[in-house]
Amino acid sequence: MSRHDPAALAERIPQGDRRALARAITLVESTRDDHRKLAEDLLERLLPLTGGSARIGISGVPGVGKSTFIETFGLHVIEQGHRVGVLAVDPTSSRSGGSILGDKTRMQELSRHRHAFVRPSPTGGTLGGVARRTREVMLLCEAAGFDVMLIETVGVGQSETAVADMVDLFMLLLLPGGGDELQGIKKGISEIADLLVVNKADVDPNAANAAASEYRSALRMLRPASDSWQPPVLTAAGLSGRGVDDVWAKIREYRQAMDTSGDLAKRRAGQARAWMWNELEESLIAAFKKHPEVARDLPELERAVTAGDLPAAAAARRLRRTFLGHAPDTDDAAAKGRTDRQEGAA
Amino acid sequence: MSRHDPAALAERIPQGDRRALARAITLVESTRDDHRKLAEDLLERLLPLTGGSARIGISGVPGVGKSTFIETFGLHVIEQGHRVGVLAVDPTSSRSGGSILGDKTRMQELSRHRHAFVRPSPTGGTLGGVARRTREVMLLCEAAGFDVMLIETVGVGQSETAVADMVDLFMLLLLPGGGDELQGIKKGISEIADLLVVNKADVDPNAANAAASEYRSALRMLRPASDSWQPPVLTAAGLSGRGVDDVWAKIREYRQAMDTSGDLAKRRAGQARAWMWNELEESLIAAFKKHPEVARDLPELERAVTAGDLPAAAAARRLRRTFLGHAPDTDDAAAKGRTDRQEGAA
Repeated sequence: MSRHDPAALAERIPQGDRRALARAITLVESTRDDHRKLAEDLLERLLPLTGGSARIGISGVPGVGKSTFIETFGLHVIEQGHRVGVLAVDPTSSRSGGSILGDKTRMQELSRHRHAFVRPSPTGGTLGGVARRTREVMLLCEAAGFDVMLIETVGVGQSETAVADMVDLFMLLLLPGGGDELQGIKKGISEIADLLVVNKADVDPNAANAAASEYRSALRMLRPASDSWQPPVLTAAGLSGRGVDDVWAKIREYRQAMDTSGDLAKRRAGQARAWMWNELEESLIAAFKKHPEVARDLPELERAVTAGDLPAAAAARRLRRTFLGHAPDTDDAAAKGRTDRQEGAA
Repeated sequence: MSRHDPAALAERIPQGDRRALARAITLVESTRDDHRKLAEDLLERLLPLTGGSARIGISGVPGVGKSTFIETFGLHVIEQGHRVGVLAVDPTSSRSGGSILGDKTRMQELSRHRHAFVRPSPTGGTLGGVARRTREVMLLCEAAGFDVMLIETVGVGQSETAVADMVDLFMLLLLPGGGDELQGIKKGISEIADLLVVNKADVDPNAANAAASEYRSALRMLRPASDSWQPPVLTAAGLSGRGVDDVWAKIREYRQAMDTSGDLAKRRAGQARAWMWNELEESLIAAFKKHPEVARDLPELERAVTAGDLPAAAAARRLRRTFLGHAPDTDDAAAKGRTDRQEGAA
């Protein structure tokens, strides 16, 4: 049997075979076309076993204490009878290390626990690529029986949005004081957060409570993403474990509210649809770049556009024609009518 | 001669023929395929005459006084010997009116001035479509001799980013007080602003100065987009005209700094390249949606993905195969090597 045989992997993963899970992840993360086909075959086989986890995104600026919080929080959730998977989306991570979760010593106890699975961020590639692989690894973990998935992300660029687009709940960890207590608000991240947690709250509980109040008033000025949930602000301490149980209780409350309102089902359906279009665009652009004549013409056209010698639209049209071999000309009667009406408006 | 003959339009637009400019804009804004070809032909002819304007984006929340500011500012710039074009990007505007700039009475004196050209936002369509048409109309106006282009946008959604991606300088108008003085900061817009102006400053000059100071400290916590420019915060009053000359002087100073550092050339080259890829993606997706077999299969596959019966990647792959008639299988030796190395990491 090949080590990448989808049928065999699909049988062994739900049995809790960690070696099979690791091989499946390698397959999903591979950029080879033959691996991709095997990965899609495998994912299709496992699909009925996926979707059963509470998918939780966790973000926060460097220094907020994400690793310690995830370690403590993950162990608490395991104590409640769950199995916890921890993944990461970090497009800045490189093969040479230094990435978040690259160093498993960060979550020593959790990563060794038999009811936990900790996986570093896929390395290299675009954010889109890293996010796709992470989303698929999340499905594999669900099929392997992990019923709480924590998706960590660094507080840079668009990685928060990418994670928010694949989870049920997005949690933002915040610092209790200092000049950057409104950092999250400023970066616009709080607008996608379903739950805010002021971490390191046992260093100075008063400061943490004051920060939480400040965030609560700031949040009142923003429109919540769902009508059935106003994002709460809690305080906790990853190091001592104080308040971590409240965070888990609040997540269960959120789940209940979103299930009852039907918002969770809507959110997941919307994510799946967006994901399909995303895959499609990436897949079309990839096929486009591999096309021999496109690859031949692209550098010169790109140079001409950048130098201002050729309009962007004209270059795009020529490249599309080269790629597709034709330019579909569909006359749109409605568009025609509208154009004629607009004629006199200028 | 056809009213849409690119050669004739390309001859008359640079002569200042407003009727030709209006027709060219109608052509560019049309969604008909035959019009699109003529528009691209026209844009290619005019391209050597474009790029000569100071491209300025202007944003701010409703009520900040954008119209009045643009009226006063535009007339001031005309007094300095310039010709001013005013366009808008408002994806929320509908054909029934109510859009920004839809009502020309908003800028009565400016819109009647022979050295000004005021054009409402294209109506309907996606933000991408509205932005594309606006960018091309900007090129037409430049070819018609307008050397200062003001691109207005409403303070909602992603329209600011779309405008920032087509201008040399992005100006954010702010209110001098009230609970929402940090509105811009919260929404993350200030991160793309090159110049901040506290408007309505003559109502209460002290409050305006205080607000400006507050913004200055907030900005110090953010990384500026360019190393050669730290976004300044000015105060002005569109209604009385106070400070409007300072705003124009600051814009000229910005231009000087960005020209000297080479950052303006870099910014424009980057915008052109991004624009080409953007056009290409939109154009590929449009051709994809028009494909008969894709149109036939898409609803059922989208339903299956949304219902969780089919992985997004598998649906995307099937649709891509239907569209392209084949799936390019290129073995990538580098990717292969990388995958093999990653195998042992899990």
